[in-house]
Amino acid sequence: MTVSCVNPFLLHLLFINQSTFEYRERIRKELDNAVDFWLKYSHDTIYGGFFTCIGRDGKVYDELKYVWLQGRQVWMYCRLYRTMDRFRKPEILEAAKAGGAFLRKFARVSSGQWKCAFCLTRDGKAVKIQRTIFSECFYIMAIDELGRVLGDKDMQLEAEQLMEQLIYWVKEDSSGLGRPQLPGDVPTNSMAVPMMLLCLVQQLTDGRGQEVVHKYRELASWCVQQILQHIQRDGTAILENVSPEGAELPGCQGRLQNPGHALEAGWFLLQVSAEQGDAELRQTAINKFVELPYQKGWDKEHGGLFYFLDVDGHCPTQLEWSMKLWWPHCEALIAFLMAYSQTKKPELLETFSQVYEYTFNHFPDAKNGEWFGYLTQEGKVTLDFKGGPFKGKNIRWFHLPSLLLYLTPDMLNNVHVW
Amino acid sequence: MTVSCVNPFLLHLLFINQSTFEYRERIRKELDNAVDFWLKYSHDTIYGGFFTCIGRDGKVYDELKYVWLQGRQVWMYCRLYRTMDRFRKPEILEAAKAGGAFLRKFARVSSGQWKCAFCLTRDGKAVKIQRTIFSECFYIMAIDELGRVLGDKDMQLEAEQLMEQLIYWVKEDSSGLGRPQLPGDVPTNSMAVPMMLLCLVQQLTDGRGQEVVHKYRELASWCVQQILQHIQRDGTAILENVSPEGAELPGCQGRLQNPGHALEAGWFLLQVSAEQGDAELRQTAINKFVELPYQKGWDKEHGGLFYFLDVDGHCPTQLEWSMKLWWPHCEALIAFLMAYSQTKKPELLETFSQVYEYTFNHFPDAKNGEWFGYLTQEGKVTLDFKGGPFKGKNIRWFHLPSLLLYLTPDMLNNVHVW
Repeated sequence: MTVSCVNPFLLHLLFINQSTFEYRERIRKELDNAVDFWLKYSHDTIYGGFFTCIGRDGKVYDELKYVWLQGRQVWMYCRLYRTMDRFRKPEILEAAKAGGAFLRKFARVSSGQWKCAFCLTRDGKAVKIQRTIFSECFYIMAIDELGRVLGDKDMQLEAEQLMEQLIYWVKEDSSGLGRPQLPGDVPTNSMAVPMMLLCLVQQLTDGRGQEVVHKYRELASWCVQQILQHIQRDGTAILENVSPEGAELPGCQGRLQNPGHALEAGWFLLQVSAEQGDAELRQTAINKFVELPYQKGWDKEHGGLFYFLDVDGHCPTQLEWSMKLWWPHCEALIAFLMAYSQTKKPELLETFSQVYEYTFNHFPDAKNGEWFGYLTQEGKVTLDFKGGPFKGKNIRWFHLPSLLLYLTPDMLNNVHVW
Repeated sequence: MTVSCVNPFLLHLLFINQSTFEYRERIRKELDNAVDFWLKYSHDTIYGGFFTCIGRDGKVYDELKYVWLQGRQVWMYCRLYRTMDRFRKPEILEAAKAGGAFLRKFARVSSGQWKCAFCLTRDGKAVKIQRTIFSECFYIMAIDELGRVLGDKDMQLEAEQLMEQLIYWVKEDSSGLGRPQLPGDVPTNSMAVPMMLLCLVQQLTDGRGQEVVHKYRELASWCVQQILQHIQRDGTAILENVSPEGAELPGCQGRLQNPGHALEAGWFLLQVSAEQGDAELRQTAINKFVELPYQKGWDKEHGGLFYFLDVDGHCPTQLEWSMKLWWPHCEALIAFLMAYSQTKKPELLETFSQVYEYTFNHFPDAKNGEWFGYLTQEGKVTLDFKGGPFKGKNIRWFHLPSLLLYLTPDMLNNVHVW
């Protein structure tokens, strides 16, 4: 074919190819920088495990070790090692093994019980226990992924045993988590729980054959249904907390929207829809969990995604509601790119570009590497550390490499070949 | 005496008198407005008690009832009724009685036990229990003050019985609070605990004669010593958490400064020093708990007091660290005016004026009455409700009327006669 004049369609393709080349290069560079940062500053070579409170310049400003973050870092090192050639290095494997050993030695509060601490001293003594399942979830992710890297079936078994305990706590009886049963404390379907369990099902079944898939099939289906219950108000909003039957709850808790969390659920559902070839689920995921939270959550004045919103327009009670955090932006980037790669609809790519511009213009720290995590509504860095303790859902480590991992190279290749 | 030319000293006096007249009028007006606002919007005439989640315009946006705030509102109504003629109205007394009845009926989680809930449903069912002593503290304050107004000795007795339980939890054995004993959870002298107990001693002994004073004398002295332990770094900082022996704790927790809290402790200590005629304590209170937190905590760029700071200049991990909250400013106003009224040092009055300007220019809501509670570092209102649930130490109700109550009229009369 001879092109005798400028073809707008080809120009568009050229533009997309150019952009995706830039995206890929930038994302590759950011992932390398982030991994270098954590390899350099976070390893505790004396007591094992990882420091998680790390300042702007890499300095450890608190020695406490948060179990979520220990688990996530082990998982991330293993996943990088296992799936991306350039990270298949002995130092990454050794760090993952050391982190896994620390977790297995210290995370469980007492031997014979599955409950894990939330926070440990540098030498592994329990400081705090949460009355939730999340420390245990990240323990499972870490141990299962490490077991895959090492070919260690005991680790897989341990992960599956703890998973049984989690399912019991969530679906049968939560009293083992330590929460007092109070008459006014109504049962709640909080979106984090089915999302986390679905994530674990994907972890435990990935590439493992029909037997394991079958074992968790019912749970996966239950998780999807529980997530879909958060579509409320005749499909016009995703609410963070609903009743176990899927009805709206009263008060602030019931009206809460967390756009980043909805977007994260969106790409979890997109993964399921792709695995199952479920076009209806894909459409629901895109319309309700990707486009809708973005429309509601994007700050039209200053850019960026709000952290929390009230569906009726009341002021949220969370002091940080208007802040811009790195992780909802990471989730949005994954969600929009995944949605685009499954549908090829240009408007999804356009939104990805918009979120990309905001994200990469605001969060990376050009001077010291890694990303800042917390901006004011107006976009000013207001907390400058690179790793911090848990506060709400504000974890530094994990979301950034996850973003970069998920975006490289598969999905961007999908963009490239469009 | 004939004044033949302008005397600078007299001019200064004139200025001070003029300013204090304005202060008094403004504060009187704000107190009346605040009380009107809560009388108008917060009473639950169906289930009893008070709504505490109230929007900018007075609308209830959540029906949950927070026990701290129930207790504080009962206390405030009673204290106003008992000590200020213009608030000696039947509607205030009735509201206090109704609030007290709600508290006594529902706050304690199970009959025969002293542990109180943190949060109740509208009809009084327990939603949440904290593993601290503060719900119980505000219960005591409410019941004791209500007992004073009604001349009800049973209420005084109940307050004193619960006080014994609190002392046992704090000084002997905290296991009844429900916190698991964990090996890495080091014992901590958190400034809130001795401050709160000292406040309760003042509540329970005020005007009650030597027998009661004697009963709590040792506790009061212990509280003062525990508070003074927070002077750290060779007297250059007040740290929020220290060891029970008064040593600095490691990490973020140990380095945390909360300027508003230190200022609040300052005026508690000034009250004690005045009662006991202790000039040395007065000097320590002013130098270390009033002037120092102000010097460290005042934002020289935008004005106002930071919420949290790290003594070594690290970024605090609290997402709201740089925000300007109404209550530290209330504490600062009380502290500086009390310090001034005890010493007559002009620089203390100057700082009072500076804080006054910031506070009254930023927090009052001219349109709907009452005050906003939460500003960005730059001074923009970022949460616009008038009453919100507990979040950290962020209670709307109580601090504002407390400020206005304490500043009117005694201390300002002291300024006036200077």
